Amino acid sequence: MPRLAYVDGQFVPLATAAVSVEDRGLQFADSVYEVVAVLNGQLFDWDGHAARLMRNLDTLAIAMPVSAAALAQVARRLVAANRATEALLYLQITRGTARRDHGFPAQARPTLVMTVRPFDIRQRVCQQAHGVAVVTVADERWGRCDLKTTGLLANVLAKQAARAAGSFEAWLVGADGTVAEGASTNAWIVAGDGALVTPPLTHRILPGVMRAAVIKSADAIGIRVDERSFTIDEARGAAEALITSTTVPVLPVIRLDGAIIGHGVPGPVAAQLAGAIWARIAAQTSFRP
Amino acid sequence: MPRLAYVDGQFVPLATAAVSVEDRGLQFADSVYEVVAVLNGQLFDWDGHAARLMRNLDTLAIAMPVSAAALAQVARRLVAANRATEALLYLQITRGTARRDHGFPAQARPTLVMTVRPFDIRQRVCQQAHGVAVVTVADERWGRCDLKTTGLLANVLAKQAARAAGSFEAWLVGADGTVAEGASTNAWIVAGDGALVTPPLTHRILPGVMRAAVIKSADAIGIRVDERSFTIDEARGAAEALITSTTVPVLPVIRLDGAIIGHGVPGPVAAQLAGAIWARIAAQTSFRP
Repeated sequence: MPRLAYVDGQFVPLATAAVSVEDRGLQFADSVYEVVAVLNGQLFDWDGHAARLMRNLDTLAIAMPVSAAALAQVARRLVAANRATEALLYLQITRGTARRDHGFPAQARPTLVMTVRPFDIRQRVCQQAHGVAVVTVADERWGRCDLKTTGLLANVLAKQAARAAGSFEAWLVGADGTVAEGASTNAWIVAGDGALVTPPLTHRILPGVMRAAVIKSADAIGIRVDERSFTIDEARGAAEALITSTTVPVLPVIRLDGAIIGHGVPGPVAAQLAGAIWARIAAQTSFRP
Repeated sequence: MPRLAYVDGQFVPLATAAVSVEDRGLQFADSVYEVVAVLNGQLFDWDGHAARLMRNLDTLAIAMPVSAAALAQVARRLVAANRATEALLYLQITRGTARRDHGFPAQARPTLVMTVRPFDIRQRVCQQAHGVAVVTVADERWGRCDLKTTGLLANVLAKQAARAAGSFEAWLVGADGTVAEGASTNAWIVAGDGALVTPPLTHRILPGVMRAAVIKSADAIGIRVDERSFTIDEARGAAEALITSTTVPVLPVIRLDGAIIGHGVPGPVAAQLAGAIWARIAAQTSFRP
C-alpha cells in the first residue's frame, strides 16, 4: 500500500505530494508546523498540539485553512488511511502560494500539508536505560523561538554539529551562558536542591507539549519543578540532566560536551519521570512500550 | 504562452512547478536563493550572484546540483524561454528531499528551482525622484544574516510592519541601536563629514551584490565610502539616507519613522549614485530606463 499524504483537501501518494515552487513556506519559511506522536493508532496529546498551532497561526496572522474539528478529522483519517499504529504525524501550514514578495499577499489561501511516517518509540526505552550525550553550541536562532515555525536552519546546523560529535542532541547556549533548549528538545537539569529545573517560557524556547506533560507528571509524583534559567556551568555540576520532546519522552543526559553528568548513568529523577510519562501515554492511548 | 519554471532538470509550466512536501527547503528553510535582475534580456551582475550562491552552498555544505557553467546556461535558457526582457530571475537550491530529520540526510540530491517573472524596474525612476519612507523595527533575525537563506520570516514580518505604516521598507535595529540593514535592502546614510556610510560586512548583514556595485561606483565618482556601523540616532540626523538591492538600484530615504531626513527630498549624493548605477546597468546590458 503506498503511503498517503494530505495536501490541500486531497489524499495523495506521498511520493507525488507536492507544493508550488512559489509556496511561501518554501520561499520565506512563512509557515508553522506540528509533530504529533501516533501511539496505538491514537494521536497523543492532540489538544496540546492543536492549541499551540492555533496560537502560532494567530500570532503570524496566517488564516486557519480548515476548522479545528476538521483538522483533527483529517489527521485521524490520514493515520487510518496509512494504517499507522506507532508513527509520527507531521502537519505544516504555510501562508500559501503567491507571487514572491516579502509582505503578506493580499490574497492567498494557506497551504495545509500532513504526512505520516512509521516511528518506533520503543527505541527510547533502551536509550532511557543507557542515557545519551549532549554537546553545546552557540544559540544563533532568531528572537521568536517560542513560535513553531519552519525557519529551522540554525536547529539543523546545531543537530548536525551534535551528530558530528557523536552526540544525540545539541544544547543552544545564549551569550549570557544560559541554556535555552536543545535543537529539537527542551532541556532540564536536577539542581543541587533536588528541584527539576527547566528554562521559563520566554521567546527563547518552544513551549513543548511534552514539556507541559512532564511538568504535570512531576507535580503529580511530588517532584518540585522550578521554571528558571540555568547556565551551562550549573548543568555541568547538576545531579542529573534530561531532554524531552514529542519523540523523546524523557531521555537522561549522561554526558555534556564529553564530561560526565552526575554519576555518568541515568539518575532516579529521570527514571521516575520516564515512568510517569509512559503511564500518561498508556492512560491516553493504551500504548505500552 | 504559459510562463515556464525550471525544476530539477526540467522546464515546466510555472502553474504546475512543484517540490516534494518533504523537501528540506519547505520543512527546514534548509536552502539558499538568489534574485537576479534581467534587463534588456541580460542577467545583470550574474557573476556576483553566482559567486555568493557558491559561497553560501559551501558554508552550509549543500552540494551544487549542477556546474556553475550549467547554472548560468539554465538561467539564460529560462529567461529566453519566457521571452523575458525586464524581469526577475529567482533561483533556489535546497538540500533536497529526505525523510524529515534535523541532521543532514545521508543521501539527498539538492533541489534546484528557477522562476522568472516580469518586473518593471522603470518604476524606480519615479521613486528615485520622490524618495521613500522607512520605519525601524527591532532586529529579531538569526545570527547568520550574511547567508542568503530562505529563513526569512523575520524579514517578512518587518516588511509587513513597514507596509502597515505606509512605508517602503523597514530598517532592522540591533539591541545596541545600530542599523543592520533593511528587510530586503542594504542601508546607507550620508554622514556629517560627507562620507557615504554603510554597515560593514559582518554576520549581521547580507553582502549585497548591488551594495558592492554602489561602493565601486561611489569610488569611481569620488564619493568616499565608510564601511562602519551607524546608529538610528545618527541616521535621523544624516544629510541623506538611501537603500539598495537587486530590485532597488539606489532609492533615497526621505522619512525615517515619520521624521524628515535632511531636507525631506532626495539629496545630491543619492542622485549621483543612482546615475552611476543606471550607467553601470547600461554598460553591461544596454538597458536604459
